[in-house]
Amino acid sequence: MNRSVLTLLILLPLLSFSQKRIRDYGVGIGVLRPGQYNAITDVPGVRVGHVTLIKGDSIRTGVTAILPHSGNLFQEKVPAAIHVGNGFGKLAGSTQVKELGNLETPIILTNTLSVPTAVNAVIGYTLHQKGNETVRSVNAVVGETNDGYLNDIRGRHVSETDVLQAISKAKTGAVPEGNVGAGTGAICFGFKGGIGTSSRILPKKLGGYTIGVLVQTNFGGVLQIAGVDVDKQLDRYSETLKYSADGSCMMVVLTDAPLDARNLERLAKRAMMGLAKTGGIASNGSGDYVIAVSAAEECRIPYESENPIQTVPTLRNEAMTPLFLATIEATEEAILNSLFAAETMIGRDGHTIEALPKKKVLEMLQAAHKMD
Amino acid sequence: MNRSVLTLLILLPLLSFSQKRIRDYGVGIGVLRPGQYNAITDVPGVRVGHVTLIKGDSIRTGVTAILPHSGNLFQEKVPAAIHVGNGFGKLAGSTQVKELGNLETPIILTNTLSVPTAVNAVIGYTLHQKGNETVRSVNAVVGETNDGYLNDIRGRHVSETDVLQAISKAKTGAVPEGNVGAGTGAICFGFKGGIGTSSRILPKKLGGYTIGVLVQTNFGGVLQIAGVDVDKQLDRYSETLKYSADGSCMMVVLTDAPLDARNLERLAKRAMMGLAKTGGIASNGSGDYVIAVSAAEECRIPYESENPIQTVPTLRNEAMTPLFLATIEATEEAILNSLFAAETMIGRDGHTIEALPKKKVLEMLQAAHKMD
Amino acid sequence: MNRSVLTLLILLPLLSFSQKRIRDYGVGIGVLRPGQYNAITDVPGVRVGHVTLIKGDSIRTGVTAILPHSGNLFQEKVPAAIHVGNGFGKLAGSTQVKELGNLETPIILTNTLSVPTAVNAVIGYTLHQKGNETVRSVNAVVGETNDGYLNDIRGRHVSETDVLQAISKAKTGAVPEGNVGAGTGAICFGFKGGIGTSSRILPKKLGGYTIGVLVQTNFGGVLQIAGVDVDKQLDRYSETLKYSADGSCMMVVLTDAPLDARNLERLAKRAMMGLAKTGGIASNGSGDYVIAVSAAEECRIPYESENPIQTVPTLRNEAMTPLFLATIEATEEAILNSLFAAETMIGRDGHTIEALPKKKVLEMLQAAHKMD
Amino acid sequence: MNRSVLTLLILLPLLSFSQKRIRDYGVGIGVLRPGQYNAITDVPGVRVGHVTLIKGDSIRTGVTAILPHSGNLFQEKVPAAIHVGNGFGKLAGSTQVKELGNLETPIILTNTLSVPTAVNAVIGYTLHQKGNETVRSVNAVVGETNDGYLNDIRGRHVSETDVLQAISKAKTGAVPEGNVGAGTGAICFGFKGGIGTSSRILPKKLGGYTIGVLVQTNFGGVLQIAGVDVDKQLDRYSETLKYSADGSCMMVVLTDAPLDARNLERLAKRAMMGLAKTGGIASNGSGDYVIAVSAAEECRIPYESENPIQTVPTLRNEAMTPLFLATIEATEEAILNSLFAAETMIGRDGHTIEALPKKKVLEMLQAAHKMD
Repeated sequence: MNRSVLTLLILLPLLSFSQKRIRDYGVGIGVLRPGQYNAITDVPGVRVGHVTLIKGDSIRTGVTAILPHSGNLFQEKVPAAIHVGNGFGKLAGSTQVKELGNLETPIILTNTLSVPTAVNAVIGYTLHQKGNETVRSVNAVVGETNDGYLNDIRGRHVSETDVLQAISKAKTGAVPEGNVGAGTGAICFGFKGGIGTSSRILPKKLGGYTIGVLVQTNFGGVLQIAGVDVDKQLDRYSETLKYSADGSCMMVVLTDAPLDARNLERLAKRAMMGLAKTGGIASNGSGDYVIAVSAAEECRIPYESENPIQTVPTLRNEAMTPLFLATIEATEEAILNSLFAAETMIGRDGHTIEALPKKKVLEMLQAAHKMD
Repeated sequence: MNRSVLTLLILLPLLSFSQKRIRDYGVGIGVLRPGQYNAITDVPGVRVGHVTLIKGDSIRTGVTAILPHSGNLFQEKVPAAIHVGNGFGKLAGSTQVKELGNLETPIILTNTLSVPTAVNAVIGYTLHQKGNETVRSVNAVVGETNDGYLNDIRGRHVSETDVLQAISKAKTGAVPEGNVGAGTGAICFGFKGGIGTSSRILPKKLGGYTIGVLVQTNFGGVLQIAGVDVDKQLDRYSETLKYSADGSCMMVVLTDAPLDARNLERLAKRAMMGLAKTGGIASNGSGDYVIAVSAAEECRIPYESENPIQTVPTLRNEAMTPLFLATIEATEEAILNSLFAAETMIGRDGHTIEALPKKKVLEMLQAAHKMD
Repeated sequence: MNRSVLTLLILLPLLSFSQKRIRDYGVGIGVLRPGQYNAITDVPGVRVGHVTLIKGDSIRTGVTAILPHSGNLFQEKVPAAIHVGNGFGKLAGSTQVKELGNLETPIILTNTLSVPTAVNAVIGYTLHQKGNETVRSVNAVVGETNDGYLNDIRGRHVSETDVLQAISKAKTGAVPEGNVGAGTGAICFGFKGGIGTSSRILPKKLGGYTIGVLVQTNFGGVLQIAGVDVDKQLDRYSETLKYSADGSCMMVVLTDAPLDARNLERLAKRAMMGLAKTGGIASNGSGDYVIAVSAAEECRIPYESENPIQTVPTLRNEAMTPLFLATIEATEEAILNSLFAAETMIGRDGHTIEALPKKKVLEMLQAAHKMD
Repeated sequence: MNRSVLTLLILLPLLSFSQKRIRDYGVGIGVLRPGQYNAITDVPGVRVGHVTLIKGDSIRTGVTAILPHSGNLFQEKVPAAIHVGNGFGKLAGSTQVKELGNLETPIILTNTLSVPTAVNAVIGYTLHQKGNETVRSVNAVVGETNDGYLNDIRGRHVSETDVLQAISKAKTGAVPEGNVGAGTGAICFGFKGGIGTSSRILPKKLGGYTIGVLVQTNFGGVLQIAGVDVDKQLDRYSETLKYSADGSCMMVVLTDAPLDARNLERLAKRAMMGLAKTGGIASNGSGDYVIAVSAAEECRIPYESENPIQTVPTLRNEAMTPLFLATIEATEEAILNSLFAAETMIGRDGHTIEALPKKKVLEMLQAAHKMD
């Protein structure tokens, strides 16, 4: 046994795993560096809010809101695109985003059967915002994953008030991960999943842009962490997976790079490649969606304008490559962060989902020299 | 003045226009013959239900439900596809239909801001159907147009009960048109629009299939009826349109032809060509969607099956051409039927939308020898 | 000189119809006015070149080239999009145009089996242009229709030289129509089809932009001209069409409006609506493609740039509506122009395709009061 | 140093690296087992042929042909789909495959500028096949990557004869990999790339189907092999990649599972997830395409049929998940096989591309316990 493994074993009992993210263990994902919070909120102006609903024996759900900027999003829309990795899901708002190339509301994540409640809440939120007195059309973007194993999803316990609170509580800075917000009842690779986030900052000579990703992880496959075959080593696969690979993953990508909708769609596609690196397979029953948004101030699209022409800076195609890499890395790390943060949960009908066995996993990572 | 025009002028005062459809005036659209009801319900098993909400000065809205068959749709799904003609709209359910190639709920049409209410209702409807006790995921397909000029749309007056009633009232046979259901507050080419329907039966040697179309017409352009330049003759276009061309058109295409999702998507695209023939232009602000469904009994897709392989008859590509023609014709005629059926309406803030001036229009059609 | 060509030459002086376009008979399509030439070349800088191959008994084919501007297209790319109306066709170059949002070569139209020859020619043309000495990747956009009924298409008689000549002969001003270039052997609604073109100029207050359309018409359906049911009146439809509706239509849309690729794709979709108004149905065997390009000088995309950011004016979404209308009108008129210009042709194996019976058609148009 | 590393170091000099594939070193990719040849040819009836062109100082290119079955492909088409991972490429044939859901020719891979030559060859091949005497339309599917760094690509040295030879030489059994056929001049992660292949067999209870993948690897990113950070350990990334990540990857997926075009498109999307696991990022300049084909005999689509209805077995959606996993695994391994097989090459202008430093890489794999 080499020295660092020894050191680890001594230290392990002292660690409060739930407080640490994968990077805190010296495991670097990719080659680019993260931002200050290693979170979607590293993109200037971006805010995140959670409402977590854990009540009684069977309510294990919640809402997460992501706001690209602090102004009136309907009056100052942002360039956006949505990529459908696998469309077994109920995401609201995709066709209008594709047609018009913009987003006009906060992004809401919740559970599958609460999407319409969240849409209703976002419509109410928008109609009542100052300046929107005559608005009669609102395209709410609401994503979901299915937490019905741990949560009494048929009870539809998310209320419009919950959604409005997630929006009003949204703030900049560090983002709570794991069993919070829309990730409360999520299951990922058969372990407890949830919310995760990560970011990357491009080197100055590649533009210096920030990419931030937030995920709601409720999917499966054959788990790999930093390239290490966790599921194989844990013998969780015989002839077939020992747990269902179905589920879903919602991925939200924000950037301050000035991108138009076409290049945002290309960016969105890369998040699926980050998911792939964790062992995700986008199973038949998975609703894997990526919402990509440019929060660049100079790219905002006013709702109304006297000038039919808008002159906007946009990044040229060939400058996209480093942003692609950043998106892949941040998505992979955000997913892993959700697994490291989520804790064992008992829910509906006594269903129990264990947290990732972090001790074992860290031993594997150590053995593979993944912990620097 | 030629004799037939004279005859018409004599007869005109005797006609109750609201009872008659364009075909009743001898105006044939296209070359194929319609079915018994000249309605979407000519497709065996298909049912339609309306709930019309006209209350006080400002509520002018409603719900229309279309059911492909009378069984449990969730347990016996039907092949389906959705085509986005122009995506400035809030249609729910499109990505899952595309991914899985099927529909698992009734199709609901309503107003823009009531989509989430309708989705909630359809989820409830499905969860509570016998046999669906353990269902935890429902993909409701709900379309909409914006009736906010005549209707207090911001008041969101459609209730879940209204939606459930539209479903429970759905029946076969003749379909009410015009100011009913989801078409109650619709505006089409600046005239009162609404619900319209039509059908076509293919000749036996082309398969003998039925195509039925139902539309919710709330869009604009430069109106042509049976090829006659109505808007031009009415001088409703100077340098620019004298009314807004924005709005939307929802089109639902049903058939008993055994089609898979790929060929249903091709069929759906043709409905936009029928819309074009009325002078529709799919303006920027239009949400033009086509939902195409095969109600062929032999094509139903059981929710669960012990056999991973399903052996299903499907029409070969080259047999699609007559179905394309039928869809174009039925869509054009359904739109015209909505205009002929809709009556002048006064709504929100005293806003008034006139019915199509049928007398003048019929004179034009007569003059152009369009009335046989 | 063979007999049929001789016959044709004798008859030509007697024909007055072949010199006139539909608008020359007082038949106005739509409500917007055309440009000076009522041609795609009304868009400033756009040039068109034809090479017509009529040789012996069985060669009836050719090439048409459309150049968005007179510079080096590879070094100064233009924003572009391609819409697939029905994809039974062999158009080259679509995926790269979609991914990158630009066009880097002349657009070439020819017959189905000569697409690769044309691609080879365009590659050679591009590699040898001054300034392209180190270019090692060229995305040629080449469309086609199948002229195999009149033309010995299996003989693949189009040479690279023919393609290069079409490019080098391209010029501004009036565009020859009918049996020329890529339209030489085309068949449209069972009559002789070919090349047609038309344009629209928006009113100043709608931006004053020009839309130009060029079509290669080789498709079918149930012919309507200016809304008049020509095929029905000519009894060319009984229970089924008396001719094959298969074939294809290539549509090229150019504009000087500053559009990005997303809005060009929306524009392209509208050309199919213009096709629908002539009675086209996009039959199963049809390859209906629309290539839309902005020739606006301020939107050009330099191949290489030191600045990774390009600041470009683009039209806002809501300013697109009049451009949609213009595209629909110009496409419809371009198709009709192809029918009015094309003359009876005898080709392969003595196959004969009659020209549109203009005298009868004009009588119908007259009777329907379509000739002002 | 642990014992197994020691063992390896002793054995290394004895190994002839170029003969071995990654699995031969005990490195298993994924959890499913490969077929007999661990090649695309494990799918019954599938054949592969290469023509390799290495001439003088600067010709380093070739052709690879993949034939789904041994009959007349035009007369017996196969269900197919094409997914565009990143569309900076010149793949021919995509729109017709998407529209009709089938493939009617061999699949050809070659270099970027030789696509039209290959299309011409495939047209000729098809026109002259027995039974195709009256065929006048052929949709050749030809993919490419750009070998212009090692190869004089501007010289367009691939001839139609080369393409025809690749087809006629196609055979079942083991498939040569590395610097052969279309992979001759390929560069992958800055190392020599080329052709690679792999397969997976599903367990009986999951259907027992075979998935075979063949790739032409000419792309970049940040190389990982079996999850080991090869590029990071080799310090090939500082602030930016030390080599260009541009290039392309063509992926061909064959299966004997009875799939329709919709589910083949879903399958195709998963190949990009396999690419992601090698560190590929689908850079801006990459043309990443996946062609997925069902070779299941019972799914063949006759060119002509008296019966307009075809009754075909197809796999249900929920049975796709294991096929998704198999595609991801086989794609990852096929890419790695291309790297392990390719050898250092000197080409155009003395450009040299080194083979993967297998010794170092194997040490890394050993250290990470990836060699069982």
